[in-house]
Amino acid sequence: MNMSTLLNLPNFVELALSPEQLKRMSLSELEALSAQLRADLISSVSKTGGHLASNLGIVEITLALHRVFDSPKDKLVWDVGHQTYIHKMLTGRKERFDTLRQYKGLAGFVTPLESEHDSFVAGHSSTSISLAVGMAIARDQLAEKHKVVAIIGDGGLTGGMALEALNHLGHIQKDMIIVLNDNEMSISENLGGFSQYMKRIKETFFYKDIKEKLDLIEGELDEVKLEPQIWDLISTVKKQARNRIETPGIVFEKLGINYSGPIDGHDVKAVVDAFERVKDLSGPQLVHVITQKGKGYGPAEADAIKYHGVSAFTPEKVEPAPVVAEAKPKAKTYSQIFTEALIDIARINEKLVAITPATAEGSGLVQFGKEIPERFFDVAICEQHAVTMAAGLAKSGLLPVVSIYSTFLQRAFDQVIHDVAILNLPVIFGIDRGGLVEDGETHQGVFDISYMRSIPNMRVFAPRNAQELRNIIYTLSVEPKGPAAVRFPRDKAIDASGEMPFEKIDLTKWEWLTPSQDTTFPDKRPVLLAYGAMVDVAMNCKAELLNSGIDPVIINARSCKPMDVECLNNVLQNASKVITLEEGALTGGFGSGVLEYAMTLRLSKPKSKLAEIACLGIADNFVEHGARNILLQNCGLSKDRVVEFVRNYI
Amino acid sequence: MNMSTLLNLPNFVELALSPEQLKRMSLSELEALSAQLRADLISSVSKTGGHLASNLGIVEITLALHRVFDSPKDKLVWDVGHQTYIHKMLTGRKERFDTLRQYKGLAGFVTPLESEHDSFVAGHSSTSISLAVGMAIARDQLAEKHKVVAIIGDGGLTGGMALEALNHLGHIQKDMIIVLNDNEMSISENLGGFSQYMKRIKETFFYKDIKEKLDLIEGELDEVKLEPQIWDLISTVKKQARNRIETPGIVFEKLGINYSGPIDGHDVKAVVDAFERVKDLSGPQLVHVITQKGKGYGPAEADAIKYHGVSAFTPEKVEPAPVVAEAKPKAKTYSQIFTEALIDIARINEKLVAITPATAEGSGLVQFGKEIPERFFDVAICEQHAVTMAAGLAKSGLLPVVSIYSTFLQRAFDQVIHDVAILNLPVIFGIDRGGLVEDGETHQGVFDISYMRSIPNMRVFAPRNAQELRNIIYTLSVEPKGPAAVRFPRDKAIDASGEMPFEKIDLTKWEWLTPSQDTTFPDKRPVLLAYGAMVDVAMNCKAELLNSGIDPVIINARSCKPMDVECLNNVLQNASKVITLEEGALTGGFGSGVLEYAMTLRLSKPKSKLAEIACLGIADNFVEHGARNILLQNCGLSKDRVVEFVRNYI
Repeated sequence: MNMSTLLNLPNFVELALSPEQLKRMSLSELEALSAQLRADLISSVSKTGGHLASNLGIVEITLALHRVFDSPKDKLVWDVGHQTYIHKMLTGRKERFDTLRQYKGLAGFVTPLESEHDSFVAGHSSTSISLAVGMAIARDQLAEKHKVVAIIGDGGLTGGMALEALNHLGHIQKDMIIVLNDNEMSISENLGGFSQYMKRIKETFFYKDIKEKLDLIEGELDEVKLEPQIWDLISTVKKQARNRIETPGIVFEKLGINYSGPIDGHDVKAVVDAFERVKDLSGPQLVHVITQKGKGYGPAEADAIKYHGVSAFTPEKVEPAPVVAEAKPKAKTYSQIFTEALIDIARINEKLVAITPATAEGSGLVQFGKEIPERFFDVAICEQHAVTMAAGLAKSGLLPVVSIYSTFLQRAFDQVIHDVAILNLPVIFGIDRGGLVEDGETHQGVFDISYMRSIPNMRVFAPRNAQELRNIIYTLSVEPKGPAAVRFPRDKAIDASGEMPFEKIDLTKWEWLTPSQDTTFPDKRPVLLAYGAMVDVAMNCKAELLNSGIDPVIINARSCKPMDVECLNNVLQNASKVITLEEGALTGGFGSGVLEYAMTLRLSKPKSKLAEIACLGIADNFVEHGARNILLQNCGLSKDRVVEFVRNYI
Repeated sequence: MNMSTLLNLPNFVELALSPEQLKRMSLSELEALSAQLRADLISSVSKTGGHLASNLGIVEITLALHRVFDSPKDKLVWDVGHQTYIHKMLTGRKERFDTLRQYKGLAGFVTPLESEHDSFVAGHSSTSISLAVGMAIARDQLAEKHKVVAIIGDGGLTGGMALEALNHLGHIQKDMIIVLNDNEMSISENLGGFSQYMKRIKETFFYKDIKEKLDLIEGELDEVKLEPQIWDLISTVKKQARNRIETPGIVFEKLGINYSGPIDGHDVKAVVDAFERVKDLSGPQLVHVITQKGKGYGPAEADAIKYHGVSAFTPEKVEPAPVVAEAKPKAKTYSQIFTEALIDIARINEKLVAITPATAEGSGLVQFGKEIPERFFDVAICEQHAVTMAAGLAKSGLLPVVSIYSTFLQRAFDQVIHDVAILNLPVIFGIDRGGLVEDGETHQGVFDISYMRSIPNMRVFAPRNAQELRNIIYTLSVEPKGPAAVRFPRDKAIDASGEMPFEKIDLTKWEWLTPSQDTTFPDKRPVLLAYGAMVDVAMNCKAELLNSGIDPVIINARSCKPMDVECLNNVLQNASKVITLEEGALTGGFGSGVLEYAMTLRLSKPKSKLAEIACLGIADNFVEHGARNILLQNCGLSKDRVVEFVRNYI
């Protein structure tokens, strides 16, 4: 499909792409190239899925960066690396672009392992200014000469770490440049006083009316005879007013960061000029560039949130087709089930409030916000504040539910300990993306079992299917007695169809699945203790294991903390081999918990022979990107691999 | 000792102290009470130790808060609760004040478990605004009517979470009050563009010169004949200028927070008036109060940093004695040994840079800053930024060492994973206060082994004495090959005297202490695998165990990750009982690591009989405050308790 034709672009010859070539192009060639890159981007992402709107918005900025700066000598430090598709295309990766986010293909984020032009790894938000400060300090320490440029969105700037870094930079006054790509939204609509301030910058110079009145005074004074020094004085006042008061970036200036802008981010010449102006200046420079997410693709411009991260779709001719045929998911995701459960509970429990740190869309929680807006709080990319605010809510008598991705909750680890767990407050954590995800190293939700389990007072659950997710949250809501986490994978939910009335369940009990209740363990009959999503895998193993003459006992160990001690005592004392299964890091995980319990049981019953325990989970490495089923296979957690392990083990 | 006499204060009758009584006092009585409270504070803290300077600085603010607001109905939310001694005295705890920070005595921080006037727990910095936002939302949701007041220092305001919360508050515009206690220093001298901005607020209204010139123009214009509307216009301009431009808190105003101040924080009447003015206003209010740390006690005013947290000392008559006889520590602390090692290495390795998030004094790193200022970075209370900046430094070729307290590193858990470990960057973490500390729940450094061990690429060491701490850091500096953490307790170092030349050691090897090398394990001879500070405890157990006929093998397991596999294989396959010892949480800790390894060994050697393992460490509870030796005893980690355990176990 020729995208140039579709988008009514000049059908020019494809330009070979490299930073060097950009430097030789005329401005009109750069403009034409922007259009071409947009078309290529839409075409590629429609096949592979990925982040579309944010990358469409940053085309001109990226071209200007590579024209003005000299990567990789100059360091381009990208915040949340998902807005770097154009950067990847310009730095030797255009030919491989159709492998984006595929296993062993191009990563969805920046990573130095992929290109020397990627100066750092970035998947989480708000890291770029801190990294750039470090790089600028190192450059000066090592007497090197290159430029350091952090590229951050207005969403990323709401993150506490970015504000810490801005504050520090204002103090140490290193030579570096911050490009603020301001599209007025992070993943969802941007929030916060800071953001509203930024908005006002664009709408009006806030001293405009005072300046106009000064002009008026000046005009009137023309009529009367005045000493020349009075005119000088008026002129000085106006000049100072312009310099000091009209500065739209006064907040940045006050923090010690030199501000320039706002600049139209889709005017290549304006952006190039802005970068050229600050390139060689001393001290920290912030260039405020206004862009439009989804720029150049009608449906994405109209609904940038929907097109933030997309599955593969069919690109439409922009005009006149207004509706994009996006593939509907075949089954509900756990995120959807979670949100529906919250909405259903909120309708019968007026104390429930929902909190999200800028992931309302990804977590499905946007629906909660639509239906119960007065009890919905999107706090922007502020994981720490989200959790501690929830602590304040809980202490004051509400029942807060924090919906948060597994790896983002890492940002609020201290807050969970210090503000929630010490006072044993009833805060519910809905840990989304708990387990392996296609996004790669930065987003693998594999540590939450370990780090949440180590926190006193915390309970850590994982459901085996949609109904159980609903029941766990419901039970927590009717018996709020301390913090609890429920983790679920980024995937379609198991058994998600049909009516699912709430049922209160005994959260401390594990569930015997096969047999439904048994206390005898004939020799060689292994026990699979499966946690969360691994229950389904274990159940799928059963037929093949039976073919090999192995009849496994399968238990849904839905609570990794507290453990079901009664069940474990039974299993450990009566079975001969126990296998734990979890979609999480082996180090300190659910399996470790079982080993720890077995250790204490052995101390209290020194004479009894306990079952041998084997733990299956994710080894002590970072896991690359690729489809979840491939990653599960690689990590030894697919049906085939588990069957193979059990056969060998028995 | 009568402090009133010492300080030349009116020797008035001790006033019974309660919030109600404050409300009935005259202003002059309040002033006299401030002086009395200061004297009592100095007297008490001189006996118990504790935070002196910050509490001397906040006397009038605390009196004014309890006079104007109605605690516990109104919620006073204190940031870093160590500045609440006066608050405690005023809320029924004055009689017990001499038990401060003692085991089973008053806590050194606020905690609702101690008083209904403590609306939340606080030990770490920068939490109060988030908590107050949560409490204000809950209040409105539950249709309650009380006030919510966050009290935060200028240091706390550098923390990313506080800035996140400020930003969110500016957006949601809840009715609440922030009291900014601005003493221009956090623990050490305050840093950051924000802080410098705050300083400029106090020094001058930044538009002052423009306003003066407008006055001048006006004066000159008096001489000429002008239309009345011109005068009106000039007057309007000046008024708008005053309202909009001279606002010292323009940055706050721009973020949507109403600012008032600055107020003299040692003028009770001024502070009371300021609180009264904002008490019933709508929307978020920030009252900027200027105070002096150590106010009213000469030595503390002169050196507020030294008196931030003090051991028990002899209070001196303020005049004329200028020097305070502070008890010299008998031996060097691990913090001192750590800093000395860094300085020694930095002198031979010019790539080493040291980073601290506002704990330069506590960690001893202030000495590094004095001797090698160009490679010393105090980034303010910004743990996240500290770690990610270190990642940027490491990626650019330097060797950053982040000195950080165990519980504060929890704040940067995600940054360690996402910015340091994924790229396997050579960042060294010096984890101070790793283990039990007298400060209580919020400061117990007991989770670091678990959470650091779970991170791929991370190595986690703990030295048994001063020399080993030096050698570990030295070895890491000459072989930088990925992230590594070294944890050590808040205590005097073992074997800290004499010359300690650096020696490169094999970090992957554990050390056989008794016997010095042995591969035979006669029956009943238990193996103690001791980590870090527990090596000393294990060695101290030896004599008593020998008296009971038990001759233990003691191994210094200095690296909990990676494990010394060769040593462990030997021990697990040849000994019959192994006991792990660690001053950290059992859940996911060093002992768990040994259990995990034994599990994998059993899988690879299904026929061999492995040793039984017992793990000693800290149970799954928060540990209260009190002297470390008491806490070790309670947690089963003192010499007596370990001896008792081993005797029973064998």
